Amino acid sequence: MVRTVGSHGPKTMEAIRKAGLKLIHEHGYEAMTLRQLAAEVGVQVGSLYNHISTKQDLLFDLIKAHMDDLLAELEVRLAGIDGPVERLKAFCAFHVAYHILRKREVFIGYSELRSLDPNHYEEIVGLRRQYERRLTAILEEGRQQGLFQVGDNAVAAYGILAMLTGVCTWFRPNGRLTREQVAEIYSDMVLRGLVPPDQLPASSPLR
Amino acid sequence: MVRTVGSHGPKTMEAIRKAGLKLIHEHGYEAMTLRQLAAEVGVQVGSLYNHISTKQDLLFDLIKAHMDDLLAELEVRLAGIDGPVERLKAFCAFHVAYHILRKREVFIGYSELRSLDPNHYEEIVGLRRQYERRLTAILEEGRQQGLFQVGDNAVAAYGILAMLTGVCTWFRPNGRLTREQVAEIYSDMVLRGLVPPDQLPASSPLR
Repeated sequence: MVRTVGSHGPKTMEAIRKAGLKLIHEHGYEAMTLRQLAAEVGVQVGSLYNHISTKQDLLFDLIKAHMDDLLAELEVRLAGIDGPVERLKAFCAFHVAYHILRKREVFIGYSELRSLDPNHYEEIVGLRRQYERRLTAILEEGRQQGLFQVGDNAVAAYGILAMLTGVCTWFRPNGRLTREQVAEIYSDMVLRGLVPPDQLPASSPLR
Repeated sequence: MVRTVGSHGPKTMEAIRKAGLKLIHEHGYEAMTLRQLAAEVGVQVGSLYNHISTKQDLLFDLIKAHMDDLLAELEVRLAGIDGPVERLKAFCAFHVAYHILRKREVFIGYSELRSLDPNHYEEIVGLRRQYERRLTAILEEGRQQGLFQVGDNAVAAYGILAMLTGVCTWFRPNGRLTREQVAEIYSDMVLRGLVPPDQLPASSPLR
């Protein structure tokens, strides 16, 4: 669908991002042409260059914005939550909720890592490491306090992240489970996989 | 790299599959041209039509062969293994080992579902459902025997599959962990996430 927008200003950049997200998600980065992109935005191809210098810039911008938002919102979500069990629960609930809402960004952030230039690739991998470290720090804290039985923090973190992210591939907003229910079921599986039941408060439903 | 092969027979079809897998993995299905494919195989574009009728046929063939192999090998792996705990362990070990070895097929089977024609898509989704049902059957058996605490068989199955499949994105053959170690760590996390410790044999390392 072609919409007509002005060719300047942040509104156009926002429209370009939105169109790029849609087209890369549907066709893949390499297959998407700037002509298609311009048509989707409703501007001339030449006008794109007022906002992005290359297709690569747009891809990087999309994936980086996703990672920046993810890191910033996690920070907000974890602020003031103490103790590794509660922090891990909050992490799981946040990750599931965030990823369900941004399925296309998640898909592109995975499938089009291959298409990033080496320096862009390194930067994104660095941001991912930062995010993973937020989780491994929680796992390590729990292990040190004798609360979690973790064989290997990094492997456990990868496993947990993959499990939680996987929700993107099957969750349907009008399915039989709500976003909150799914987040809870997944948190429970993660917690149960790490926490020996006698360490949990007597009131815990996991016990 | 262009290799020269005969343009007839199963060897060429095998070379086409291999080249298709490589090119779709690197560039995406939509971006891959039959010209690129022929060059990679080392034949004329026209010769491709002795083996595949369309690019879509090749994509479907690649994803279907992957699913058929997965289902057949799982059958072999689970044969003669009794009891839900042992069967779940075997399932996890099999899934991790299989997916590590077939990272490109796994990537394409996920990222290019979008590119399958509707009837092909339905067929692949049906095969996936079959595979998922093998896992939910194990979970249900364990639940009925009071061995597993599963909130929701389907959600647990999706979570487990995503976690196990995620190994593809980070496992490096020459990294610090072997395939067997990773399979064991992951099996443990899954089992611990489902099995109340007092149900396990006293000898179990999970206890």
